[in-house]
Amino acid sequence: MRLSQFFMPVLKETPSGAEIVSHQLMLRAGLVRQSAAGIYSWLPLGLRVLQKIEAIIREEQNKAGAIELLMPTIQPAEIWRESGRYDDYGKEMLRITDRHDRELLYGPTNEELITQIFRDSVKSYKDCPRTLYHIQWKFRDEIRPRFGVMRGREFLMKDAYSFDLSKEEARKSYQKMFISYLRTFERLGLKAIPMQADTGPIGGDLSHEFIILADTGESEVFCHKALLEKSALDTTIDFDDDLSPMMEQWTSHYAATEEMHDATRFEKEVASADQISARGIEVGHIFYFGEKYTKAMKCEVQGPDGKLVTLHGGSYGIGVSRLLGAIIEASHDEDGIIWPNSVAPFDVGIINLKPGDEATDSMCQQFYKALQDHGLDCLLDDTKERPGGKFKTMDLIGLPTQIIVGPKGLKNGIVEIKSRKTGMRQELETKELDIVTAITALTNKGL
Amino acid sequence: MRLSQFFMPVLKETPSGAEIVSHQLMLRAGLVRQSAAGIYSWLPLGLRVLQKIEAIIREEQNKAGAIELLMPTIQPAEIWRESGRYDDYGKEMLRITDRHDRELLYGPTNEELITQIFRDSVKSYKDCPRTLYHIQWKFRDEIRPRFGVMRGREFLMKDAYSFDLSKEEARKSYQKMFISYLRTFERLGLKAIPMQADTGPIGGDLSHEFIILADTGESEVFCHKALLEKSALDTTIDFDDDLSPMMEQWTSHYAATEEMHDATRFEKEVASADQISARGIEVGHIFYFGEKYTKAMKCEVQGPDGKLVTLHGGSYGIGVSRLLGAIIEASHDEDGIIWPNSVAPFDVGIINLKPGDEATDSMCQQFYKALQDHGLDCLLDDTKERPGGKFKTMDLIGLPTQIIVGPKGLKNGIVEIKSRKTGMRQELETKELDIVTAITALTNKGL
Repeated sequence: MRLSQFFMPVLKETPSGAEIVSHQLMLRAGLVRQSAAGIYSWLPLGLRVLQKIEAIIREEQNKAGAIELLMPTIQPAEIWRESGRYDDYGKEMLRITDRHDRELLYGPTNEELITQIFRDSVKSYKDCPRTLYHIQWKFRDEIRPRFGVMRGREFLMKDAYSFDLSKEEARKSYQKMFISYLRTFERLGLKAIPMQADTGPIGGDLSHEFIILADTGESEVFCHKALLEKSALDTTIDFDDDLSPMMEQWTSHYAATEEMHDATRFEKEVASADQISARGIEVGHIFYFGEKYTKAMKCEVQGPDGKLVTLHGGSYGIGVSRLLGAIIEASHDEDGIIWPNSVAPFDVGIINLKPGDEATDSMCQQFYKALQDHGLDCLLDDTKERPGGKFKTMDLIGLPTQIIVGPKGLKNGIVEIKSRKTGMRQELETKELDIVTAITALTNKGL
Repeated sequence: MRLSQFFMPVLKETPSGAEIVSHQLMLRAGLVRQSAAGIYSWLPLGLRVLQKIEAIIREEQNKAGAIELLMPTIQPAEIWRESGRYDDYGKEMLRITDRHDRELLYGPTNEELITQIFRDSVKSYKDCPRTLYHIQWKFRDEIRPRFGVMRGREFLMKDAYSFDLSKEEARKSYQKMFISYLRTFERLGLKAIPMQADTGPIGGDLSHEFIILADTGESEVFCHKALLEKSALDTTIDFDDDLSPMMEQWTSHYAATEEMHDATRFEKEVASADQISARGIEVGHIFYFGEKYTKAMKCEVQGPDGKLVTLHGGSYGIGVSRLLGAIIEASHDEDGIIWPNSVAPFDVGIINLKPGDEATDSMCQQFYKALQDHGLDCLLDDTKERPGGKFKTMDLIGLPTQIIVGPKGLKNGIVEIKSRKTGMRQELETKELDIVTAITALTNKGL
């Protein structure tokens, strides 16, 4: 993409009213614009990140055997009456009356609708288990929307729902999502720690929040240091295998949100040197809820013995739009955003220091084409802005690698490459260089 | 995907209340389920088609230089008051009041919001022209939703908006979208004919509907036969070139909807043998509306001479979810859907006639893996259903190519391949065959 033809309205000043750094940077870098309180338009740069995040989540959901569908944003009130939640839900539910005075609502979540779909479609135990998911906009009418996309009203969520014949089967579905979430967040460049969450009246151990650490996090969390060093990507996983041992590795260490924290246990179980106490941001939540919705909504199948079995359910959510804010909270500096490679809106930014200079234009064009041909997305700053402004903008929007091309350098056969993350600059001789190979290598390892 | 692990609830009976064939087939083939009047859930098979359609539209929009962003579904009433449309829009607009009694609405279209975004971001003529688009759910509270996704209430639309410094510049933006639409529909396997549409108070010739022919179309259309034989894909197009000559080729032939039809002109301009009069379905609509929104909303930039210029706008819509219905209306037979290759939910369906038979399972697995490795999406029917039922289901869901594998054939070293479109069957000797190459070739040319 050539910046001269793109739509990327960056702001020089930090807009007033944006309290946290991710909100400030998302506005300044032209990722989003507020359209109403807690409701945002995603500008081209922000949408590119959102789509990359979505793609990674989708890949990992599919890998874990979940099946994608898409439920509508508007739901009929009836199914919420069936589950008993219509009156309970309170003012956070955006209630709507249509022209025929029928009661509708903008879905804040989808347990009811997916249970209705499953109930109406599946009649036999042979069609279980299934985990279905969708990535769809939701609405929660927060009393005080704030922190940009971190606590918006219209937000994008990936929500999956599992249907199993028994609690033991449901545990397997739960484990798949647990591992899938670890992989997903890690691919997004985040260190997400699963923490035991409150199971309320359901009881048991099948509820986890996935929390990333960031100084600006909304709540305090406590965990064993070992959890920060683990990876779920370093082994090949067969989701049909027994995942209990792997799950055990992740849940055996102490990890708790403020709400669930037990200071005595923490002291006892974790040596002082291994104790982490930090701020955290919730980016995912999974839980098993048994027959909560399936019983109320009569979601039953015929078992092998001909008898009806009420299915066991679980819900698995990831806050997709919120993740942009969370990633920025976890990865920025005073100059702007530092995107992890996997979700950067473009892989490389090329700065043309003197548009109109024939040699510079030509070299930029050569880079631009060669890198794109090798599957790297480039943003070429070919505008008339001064170099200083270009450097600032490129740092602000946080592309992993910058290539700086100007007439002075070119006279000496040199271009400069900069890693946004480390700030390291490196001069490369254009004449000796297999340009593409070098840049590709640099980009892949983030210089 | 293995059917035994998929979620594809097909129906044996045609559901009552579905009046037109596309609606019937979408329900029977398990593409959608109604969640409320005119509101549908997209089941996995339907979503796959929707996503393929989206991807083609996106590619062609980008190729024509349009830039993607994403506006929210919920909009504040204020901007509609600014444009003067809030009161005019009537009962089709779904109006919402939030917990703080602020007036919101579910966007039926986005002229106001995009004009606000553009106005607030762009200050100079240097940042024009731009065409911005998004693919987002819309809501129109139709008094009588019907025909499934063809006239739903919650529907997916691609809408683009152009901003230009003058009417002459706007004509260029219009032409890009015109050509882009021809390419898009052709890639979707549709023969779409651009027809002059009513420009109302704006006047001029810059409004076209794109109509596909189908016996079950909603309205009558009239055109010159030559339009059915033209292609917009047979030449390489540079969208920066002057597109007037190409546009002229398409608009010089008579083509009109019932509304715009002039029987005398039709008789005079088109020889009897070349006259086509048929039923049509609208799948796209583009129009130039000048300063209609930009004036009311003060969307101005500073021109080269320092004076403020009110921008000229155009809107360009494609009914994305409606296209599924339109494609099925145009492409089906008594046995079910016949998907064009480009949007089929899977490229190939493999029918295992005897799951449990070792040789058959193994051969199916071999096909499945090899085809996937070569980038073809496969649906493997490995269920216990009887062969007759499997054939019926595979025809119903309309995948372009079927591979039928059973123990009898394998004893003679033979599998059968069937083209859904032509019905042609062909026996292939497995032992002599470079399986993948053969199937890939067959699939690409649709047998």
